[in-house]
Amino acid sequence: MNFFIVYAHPEPKSFNGALTSHAKKALEDAGHKAIVSDLYAMQFNPVSDRRNFTSKTNPDYYKQQAEELHATEVDGFAADIKAEMEKLDWCDVLIFQFPLWWFGLPAILKGWVDKVFALGKIYGNGKWYDNGAFKGKKAMLSLTTGGPLTMYTEIGINGDIHTILYPINHGILRFVGFDVLPPFIVWGASRLSDERRQVYLEQYQNRLLTIDRVPPIVYPSLDDFDENFQLKMSEVSIDE
Amino acid sequence: MNFFIVYAHPEPKSFNGALTSHAKKALEDAGHKAIVSDLYAMQFNPVSDRRNFTSKTNPDYYKQQAEELHATEVDGFAADIKAEMEKLDWCDVLIFQFPLWWFGLPAILKGWVDKVFALGKIYGNGKWYDNGAFKGKKAMLSLTTGGPLTMYTEIGINGDIHTILYPINHGILRFVGFDVLPPFIVWGASRLSDERRQVYLEQYQNRLLTIDRVPPIVYPSLDDFDENFQLKMSEVSIDE
Repeated sequence: MNFFIVYAHPEPKSFNGALTSHAKKALEDAGHKAIVSDLYAMQFNPVSDRRNFTSKTNPDYYKQQAEELHATEVDGFAADIKAEMEKLDWCDVLIFQFPLWWFGLPAILKGWVDKVFALGKIYGNGKWYDNGAFKGKKAMLSLTTGGPLTMYTEIGINGDIHTILYPINHGILRFVGFDVLPPFIVWGASRLSDERRQVYLEQYQNRLLTIDRVPPIVYPSLDDFDENFQLKMSEVSIDE
Repeated sequence: MNFFIVYAHPEPKSFNGALTSHAKKALEDAGHKAIVSDLYAMQFNPVSDRRNFTSKTNPDYYKQQAEELHATEVDGFAADIKAEMEKLDWCDVLIFQFPLWWFGLPAILKGWVDKVFALGKIYGNGKWYDNGAFKGKKAMLSLTTGGPLTMYTEIGINGDIHTILYPINHGILRFVGFDVLPPFIVWGASRLSDERRQVYLEQYQNRLLTIDRVPPIVYPSLDDFDENFQLKMSEVSIDE
């Protein structure tokens, strides 16, 4: 299988860095292929504006989605964005490797999404959710947190991690068609012993090498919604 | 009152731009003060790295939180970050004005948070949630969406907007102590008639000028949690 890891951490010697290089080696040793986009090393610019494009459909008013549609037609995406789109086409599995910053993606990775997941090329015209461009491919978040697991439950002070990740898992990865796997989470990454780090690396390797057997998160299907994109009444339990 | 609007949109003529300039004028006409950080105009760099700092505590390993703690001690934040921290200190009300991109903040605004909300200066050592640095101040999201409201409900295809915004409202704004007001949302911004835009501008003005009377979103208090940051059992209903 072809794995595409989008990796966002400013320190190569960080545990995020270790997870990335360990994953690449383990996957390649097992006969898979793995490409890493190291956004910090690439000095990826996450700010969306006219530099996303070599083409221009309206020079007087910058409407990103209109420019994206136009760029899809005329092959007008900037080279750095086009390169990432090609890696997405190539991969069977997409992984975001990042530290959870402010309960979300670091800006450099959020901006990668803002720029690369473009209307026309990646979604739109009926291509979304289970009919999305990346239907049949898998995606997974691999992240580190500052606090322990107990802070990220339904009764924990920070709230449930699955609620916190919902806008990324459902709103970004599922939106463009991926089967979204449960996240791999390293809790309290900055306070880990070397032994605990080693255990996490092994657990991560196991997860990656058995990824075909991991059931994806279950979301409603397009068929469950009516023409106004509301769940059909038959899908809503009377008890609710 | 002092209003601080952090505004993130690449097109000044956008409706986000109109909401920003309309708000500033309406607030000033009513005797308030208003400062706008126009992140695109400022060419704000949202990527967190050593450029966040003029100081350095560990040259061999970049650990952002350690550098933030050190910079807090030695006044070592970069000038662009320090300027934003001063606006936060100055304001009574913080507003994020942005288009909802991929169910979250545009990268330029996410990176503003990543950089400005620094450990030591803004949070840490018991300063968080209802004991946060900005206790007693208000914050509010003002955003535009691509789709209509019906897509963003509990039975809508994109999921409940309040769940989508929870990592921002609770994880960012509440984390640092703000009383978080319900968001002001312009639905389907790109398809609005001029009349509808005018109605939204008036509604937004009313919201801002009566902001003292808007009840904040209710979140649990630090007192509701035990020493492991779990809700005390007495707070959890037996029916759950």
